[in-house]
Amino acid sequence: MKDSVINPPVSRADIEYFSGLGVSVVHNEEQLEAKFNVDALGKYHGDAQVALFPTSTLQVSDILAYCNQRGISVVTQGGNSGVCGGAIAHQGEVILSLRDMNKVRDMDVISGVLVAESGCVLEDLDNYAQKQGYTVPVDLGARKKCMIGGNVSTNAGGLRYLRYGSMHGSVLGLEVVLPDGRILDSLFTLKKDASGYDIKQLFIGAEGTLGVVTAVAISLAPKPRASQLAVLGLQDFSKIQRAFVLARQNLGEIVSAFEFWEKRCNELVVEYESYNSPLSNSHEFYVLIETRGSCLRHDMEKLDTFLECLRGEELIDESRVVRDVEDMDKTWLFRSQMAHAHSKSGHMHVYDFSLPSKHQYELLVAVKGHLEQAGLYGKPGMPVSDVTIFGHVGDDNIHLQVIAQEFGGVVEEAMEPWVYEWVGSHGGSVAAEHGLGSHKGQFLKYSKSPVLIETMKSIKQLLDPKNIMNPGKHVSRA
Amino acid sequence: MKDSVINPPVSRADIEYFSGLGVSVVHNEEQLEAKFNVDALGKYHGDAQVALFPTSTLQVSDILAYCNQRGISVVTQGGNSGVCGGAIAHQGEVILSLRDMNKVRDMDVISGVLVAESGCVLEDLDNYAQKQGYTVPVDLGARKKCMIGGNVSTNAGGLRYLRYGSMHGSVLGLEVVLPDGRILDSLFTLKKDASGYDIKQLFIGAEGTLGVVTAVAISLAPKPRASQLAVLGLQDFSKIQRAFVLARQNLGEIVSAFEFWEKRCNELVVEYESYNSPLSNSHEFYVLIETRGSCLRHDMEKLDTFLECLRGEELIDESRVVRDVEDMDKTWLFRSQMAHAHSKSGHMHVYDFSLPSKHQYELLVAVKGHLEQAGLYGKPGMPVSDVTIFGHVGDDNIHLQVIAQEFGGVVEEAMEPWVYEWVGSHGGSVAAEHGLGSHKGQFLKYSKSPVLIETMKSIKQLLDPKNIMNPGKHVSRA
Repeated sequence: MKDSVINPPVSRADIEYFSGLGVSVVHNEEQLEAKFNVDALGKYHGDAQVALFPTSTLQVSDILAYCNQRGISVVTQGGNSGVCGGAIAHQGEVILSLRDMNKVRDMDVISGVLVAESGCVLEDLDNYAQKQGYTVPVDLGARKKCMIGGNVSTNAGGLRYLRYGSMHGSVLGLEVVLPDGRILDSLFTLKKDASGYDIKQLFIGAEGTLGVVTAVAISLAPKPRASQLAVLGLQDFSKIQRAFVLARQNLGEIVSAFEFWEKRCNELVVEYESYNSPLSNSHEFYVLIETRGSCLRHDMEKLDTFLECLRGEELIDESRVVRDVEDMDKTWLFRSQMAHAHSKSGHMHVYDFSLPSKHQYELLVAVKGHLEQAGLYGKPGMPVSDVTIFGHVGDDNIHLQVIAQEFGGVVEEAMEPWVYEWVGSHGGSVAAEHGLGSHKGQFLKYSKSPVLIETMKSIKQLLDPKNIMNPGKHVSRA
Repeated sequence: MKDSVINPPVSRADIEYFSGLGVSVVHNEEQLEAKFNVDALGKYHGDAQVALFPTSTLQVSDILAYCNQRGISVVTQGGNSGVCGGAIAHQGEVILSLRDMNKVRDMDVISGVLVAESGCVLEDLDNYAQKQGYTVPVDLGARKKCMIGGNVSTNAGGLRYLRYGSMHGSVLGLEVVLPDGRILDSLFTLKKDASGYDIKQLFIGAEGTLGVVTAVAISLAPKPRASQLAVLGLQDFSKIQRAFVLARQNLGEIVSAFEFWEKRCNELVVEYESYNSPLSNSHEFYVLIETRGSCLRHDMEKLDTFLECLRGEELIDESRVVRDVEDMDKTWLFRSQMAHAHSKSGHMHVYDFSLPSKHQYELLVAVKGHLEQAGLYGKPGMPVSDVTIFGHVGDDNIHLQVIAQEFGGVVEEAMEPWVYEWVGSHGGSVAAEHGLGSHKGQFLKYSKSPVLIETMKSIKQLLDPKNIMNPGKHVSRA
């Protein structure tokens, strides 16, 4: 995890300087360890000695100007819900937490554009938006913890990408503090804009390596008047693909999510989270479809037609339509807790790939075969207890979980770089929505060309010449 | 239009070099003048002596490597349908036309991702996509002439932005030849990807100043099963805003376009294009709404409910629903020919702003007042015959036309920079979807901050240090 950057230890004078700015400072080791020096899964551990809690963009600017001048490296942290170590200070960097920059700055109820500070928790922001008749176009399992600045900085995809698309489309503007403390005011709220290079795009997915995103202007989606779910039980993966094509045809503009998971994922949630399975019988695969529309009667009719199509083609063995609000919440919770359930069952090596759908099931078979051949999986007592996939159909996004007795070790050695090479050679990307973090930059070469990686590095060099922002991570590792 | 770049004249040896690559070369002055040295409106004139027609990315790479080494500047041209002079060679640059790179490279009918070379004409591409059950998410009046590479390079917005969003969201990958001839292969077809900086975004809207976009991977939208139009006649601008809010509520996910124009625009199309007005009576304002959905019966019901709402609130004086395919085409054509009709009526100074909707009508009043005060408008025989607005509601995008007896002159002097300053001070952007071209970079400062403009310039310097790509245009003028 280390690279050649050596941070000067943060001195008493530094801390006094930060305090003098009016910024809250935490340098109690226990507090840091409990909240800021460990990631969501307990896999990545940091050694920051100081965490700063600015409350304004000007404070962030002052902090960065000082750090840049002194050569002090900075790791920006939002909700610290990432699973790739991107927000962990591995080499004594100062943690810059945006937790206390959590105001909604503006909301235009006609255009549906929200301007919020980076520290706003995603779920709070969505609740706020819903009261105004809108919904935030990104949603993910960590919604109670993750913050909008982190969602932007990791280019979060989530559950409704299929409907609302990418952050690159929905983020209209950003306020960013550059590594030297200059404030890049690009916080536009206009939908169309073709005047110059769209600089803000560079910060979407930059994981804090190019500057600090302090505020976000985002185009909200209208709050749906009607919503319903259908859960399907299917026997094989190819039937999921066919069901997806039929959903696009029959549900058209109202389909807002199309998730799948396999049998073992379902079992793990039942076992470790004590939830009831969303279907009565056990199936090889499960699909969760959500519709969001403006007329429930129309949407019900469309969903019924779709289900009839599925039955007509004998694609499903069981189905359940959910229209009760509480039941819909429960069903979504079942899906959302999937990663959590896995992590309770053992040490979860989580992989997050983009992969053409035709290769997704093949990946699972290949990984199981590879681990069996390595003598790590397939018999009781072996280091790997489970290998599972679940994902977002239509987004080309699949999550692979390898549950082991420990992090790293023989399992990681067997998996990496092998699995990244496999994904790259099958037209996939090594990170779909979790980001590169501290670990995956080294595998970028399996899915991105040398010229592209060189160009990325030259952008990093241009914007952060002293390499103080999240050093040794992301493309710096490539 | 000139800046300090002086191009070496293209020599006989250069032409031989290009021919030796197997590239078609045109250096006949008449041919160049007729097609490549003049823009769509006849406003901008160039003086290129050579146009090149590569048929492959490798040829483009060879051309740029040679030009970069020799210091020969290059203007990339697609359909040459731009109206801001961005594709015109003002200082003897070599024209690199992508007209002959017009193959569809790949189409995935499951994921709906199309990979096409930059020279594909937008309408051809949409016809191709429709045969596969999809539609290209961008559409604009110049569809018969403009090419997909140009659409990307100008960050085209167009008629259905409201539904399908921005190029920054729908373009998944680009193949770009960098100014030094290196090929940046970023032609990904995966929907989610969070692995490194999204470099391709820089080329969306770069207007050929950072490299040559040779191929585009774009996420298509499903071809709608049902479509219908409604044309409305209204008395004032505020009623358009209210109608838009009601459309979002009642038509929700099926509204795909919401266009408006004022009385004089309607008259000009009737007069200069000999089309029938889409409504029986004359109105101060017209609105064209399109729905696209998967069930005509549902969509008809939604549209009827919406129109009842409009009548209930006394927002409209006349309405006409169009469901016949031929009639829909005609109605769209009426809207699409609006700019053309203006340009036939005189010398059209066209302005393309993003502007918060609350200021859009105010702009028209301000411009008329300003030109009247300058003694240029308001009485017969004065230099300005018409001042009009039309635009895309919901995209914050308004087009302002000032029709004069000549280009430039006293009218341009009175308008500029005054109008850009006005727009900037009302929270607008100096270019919404036409781009900066050769002229508007100088006004960028009215809507973008110095730090942002500096950052744009540093990106240009990084990627095109010898300044051979479309020199003196876009942000180079800022």
